Amino acid sequence: MEIFYSDQVFEGSLRLPAEETAHCMRVLRHRPGDEIDVIDGRGTLYHCVLQEDAPAGGAQKRGKGEEQTALARIVSSETSWGSHPYRLTLAVCPTKNPDRYEWMAEKVTEVGIDTLAPVIGERSERRVLKTDRLHRILLSAAKQSLKGTIPELLEPQTVMEFIAGMGEAREASGELRLIAYCSDEVKPRAFIMNLLGQLKEHAGAPEVTVLIGPEGDFSPAEVQAAMAAGFVPVSLGSSRLRTETAAITAAEAVYLSIYE
Amino acid sequence: MEIFYSDQVFEGSLRLPAEETAHCMRVLRHRPGDEIDVIDGRGTLYHCVLQEDAPAGGAQKRGKGEEQTALARIVSSETSWGSHPYRLTLAVCPTKNPDRYEWMAEKVTEVGIDTLAPVIGERSERRVLKTDRLHRILLSAAKQSLKGTIPELLEPQTVMEFIAGMGEAREASGELRLIAYCSDEVKPRAFIMNLLGQLKEHAGAPEVTVLIGPEGDFSPAEVQAAMAAGFVPVSLGSSRLRTETAAITAAEAVYLSIYE
Repeated sequence: MEIFYSDQVFEGSLRLPAEETAHCMRVLRHRPGDEIDVIDGRGTLYHCVLQEDAPAGGAQKRGKGEEQTALARIVSSETSWGSHPYRLTLAVCPTKNPDRYEWMAEKVTEVGIDTLAPVIGERSERRVLKTDRLHRILLSAAKQSLKGTIPELLEPQTVMEFIAGMGEAREASGELRLIAYCSDEVKPRAFIMNLLGQLKEHAGAPEVTVLIGPEGDFSPAEVQAAMAAGFVPVSLGSSRLRTETAAITAAEAVYLSIYE
Repeated sequence: MEIFYSDQVFEGSLRLPAEETAHCMRVLRHRPGDEIDVIDGRGTLYHCVLQEDAPAGGAQKRGKGEEQTALARIVSSETSWGSHPYRLTLAVCPTKNPDRYEWMAEKVTEVGIDTLAPVIGERSERRVLKTDRLHRILLSAAKQSLKGTIPELLEPQTVMEFIAGMGEAREASGELRLIAYCSDEVKPRAFIMNLLGQLKEHAGAPEVTVLIGPEGDFSPAEVQAAMAAGFVPVSLGSSRLRTETAAITAAEAVYLSIYE
């Protein structure tokens, strides 16, 4: 099943962006009249029929060399397409090697997350993260794994800024905030599966946030700030995991715990 | 913690292979008298003191240009170092892109597996897999994630050969054989976590084997052969996962289920 993406959905029709149009018409050689499936990245899948290829026509006159966008007529739609029964935010410090972060972003999208927040820890070696490529990876992984929603990618911020922006904890409504922490300062930590098991008792989709630190771990100040904001220190088991593997493990734990 | 590997452990001493010696002496600039930690890849960690760097000396005379190997005196040792409370074999078909298979091999080693069996399905597009790089990746991931045992890498074989080599199923002794299967021919399949939950009741380390198919899925004949050999068709949840993500998810499911 081939999925396309559109950020321009109108009443009864939608327009594919230039890159998607090129893939659809030139690479896959679709022609006007072909049926295609398109996500809006916000949860809905549209079954469509390609109307025209290029030039885009109508009111949008295009100059020579301008990129072409295809119009498609919407035949039917499905909301909450490929959705999961939880809301998961992963706040993950950059890895030294950006490839590892990108691979993680792809895998957690396949498994199922809602928001990826790149956060810079006090002990992060890498303090800059380019989000352009990450946006493309999240889009591509969502399409490939048949999900109507593209995970939201937040702008990079510090761990402290992220924690400060969390607001009041709402444990009673099935919200869970977890911080995966390696050092021995806070012990014993609960095993993540034991905490997630409790979530099943809550009605509605539980909301889970997991903070994953850098190679050098969180600073004591960051751990204290997180705990003050309601984050519970958790263990991801006895294996020593790299940052990106810890993030995947946290996503898998939520996915495997809250399956319906 | 920096870990080295040796395949030559004697009574009271061990010798680092040439590559490990170069990393230890030339890159990390260790000197005779320094303490180092060395795994034998079969479960034991040795605390050692470097005796000499090069030439290897003793009875082993070396010609000019020959690679150097360092000798270390064993001070103490720990068996079952970094072990996990289960035995997991992952039999995974090659991915079209070999990078994805190698990434998977690294991740499942970090999480914790015992045997990786590359298996070629009837519908596998890629039918050849180079194991040299995989051996290096498994070694490197075991050292990095502080495990004394390097997962065993089997030679590539067909799915049918792998199944035929499994022998009798021993469910009563806590053995579980699972096949992750996408198509709708066998339904309903059990969710992997529900089956793994039963393993906790068994005494001793449960033995789990998971078969993960190629992009084009297993053939009906392969599924039938697997089921005849005691493999239970399982679901890895509602997300559509790539081959390598399915393998990681299966390893995470076992790791997160059978934690002690």
